[in-house]
Amino acid sequence: MKIRVYYEDTDAGGIVYHANYIKYCERARSEVFFENDLSPEMNGCHFVAGSMTCKFIKSAKLGDILEVKTELLENKNVSLLLKQTIFLKDEKIFEMEIKVGFVDKSGKITKIPQELKTIFE
Amino acid sequence: MKIRVYYEDTDAGGIVYHANYIKYCERARSEVFFENDLSPEMNGCHFVAGSMTCKFIKSAKLGDILEVKTELLENKNVSLLLKQTIFLKDEKIFEMEIKVGFVDKSGKITKIPQELKTIFE
Amino acid sequence: MKIRVYYEDTDAGGIVYHANYIKYCERARSEVFFENDLSPEMNGCHFVAGSMTCKFIKSAKLGDILEVKTELLENKNVSLLLKQTIFLKDEKIFEMEIKVGFVDKSGKITKIPQELKTIFE
Amino acid sequence: MKIRVYYEDTDAGGIVYHANYIKYCERARSEVFFENDLSPEMNGCHFVAGSMTCKFIKSAKLGDILEVKTELLENKNVSLLLKQTIFLKDEKIFEMEIKVGFVDKSGKITKIPQELKTIFE
Repeated sequence: MKIRVYYEDTDAGGIVYHANYIKYCERARSEVFFENDLSPEMNGCHFVAGSMTCKFIKSAKLGDILEVKTELLENKNVSLLLKQTIFLKDEKIFEMEIKVGFVDKSGKITKIPQELKTIFE
Repeated sequence: MKIRVYYEDTDAGGIVYHANYIKYCERARSEVFFENDLSPEMNGCHFVAGSMTCKFIKSAKLGDILEVKTELLENKNVSLLLKQTIFLKDEKIFEMEIKVGFVDKSGKITKIPQELKTIFE
Repeated sequence: MKIRVYYEDTDAGGIVYHANYIKYCERARSEVFFENDLSPEMNGCHFVAGSMTCKFIKSAKLGDILEVKTELLENKNVSLLLKQTIFLKDEKIFEMEIKVGFVDKSGKITKIPQELKTIFE
Repeated sequence: MKIRVYYEDTDAGGIVYHANYIKYCERARSEVFFENDLSPEMNGCHFVAGSMTCKFIKSAKLGDILEVKTELLENKNVSLLLKQTIFLKDEKIFEMEIKVGFVDKSGKITKIPQELKTIFE
């Protein structure tokens, strides 16, 4: 998934604001569902972030085109462990491992539907 | 209402990203409800922006403390017309007039509860 | 220009947060430069919003694909008046007229380079 | 440091969008400088995120007032390791450890001025 850096993504330091790399990764995760005609929300249930480890390697700036790659590391009943890497012209600038859980309306952990798991496999 | 400008609010131009003044005004509108122990959401209904006119006068930058003033111009059954002005050290830097309507869950225009109107009067 | 609505764009009302339509329009303006191998910044000068009038017609939600159209209404030495319209499946959901000026590093109004004007014509 | 949750912070799931907890922590770090009449930027140098580990424990929602606590874990010449914890009514809802480095205009790692280190100690 390709993402262009716009003004809103940058900060007064002239580079992409650090929390926005987390947003780019979330866009990439959601896009996996959308392009399969699915939604990250299903029957009122949705994914939530549980924990993540991030490494900021280089900075991106206004106008850059970034690429986000998403890889499944662990596939459990109620959670997924994903590795997401952001590249700028083939150079890795950010990487993160994120564990996402699946919860129902009340916030209770619930089983991820097979249909949603399949697309990450 | 006082608002500090943080990195996330600025862009690569070194100043506050223009759309964030609109966010500051929304914070100020919501805060009117919160500090009266109310919420801008009531019985599943909430306010939506209908139209607005904005004038960007000067720019704010990282670390500035802004003040937002909110004034009621027009008070109708299903909408409010508000004037919101942002000041930096007593100097006006942004002003906007915004018309907000009140809608129910399905998005249908509905009457604003008297309780919510009173606090703007 | 096509824009997908992601989680970060929505709010607790379940729809796109109103200020984000303003961001989408800015992305579309910047993209006009980027896809012509130019940048909205040139020789340390850049565009700033002067005033705008917005009309919120319908709401977009998570997963929607929006289209932003940008039209030049007025072309002056130091400013441009643009009309930007956002469509969801051919239905107009937002429109705005925005006047942008061109300023140098110190914030002083300056002439827009012909190279940048040409691409909007 | 106290932070109110506004509409812009929430998403269609009805809760605070996960990347916004990272923003809240950055606000708290910057505020440490501002309230000491300093800035996180000094002589053209500024802090950048190097790596972080985050744990999302509970969710916050519209109108909540959160409190961010910042603690210095490690104090080196060119970097700081901080622990930041977010509380909602005395309950821990988010925690993170973040390593921030200090860089000059060109992005080169540089020594943190003693003046800036002192305030975290």
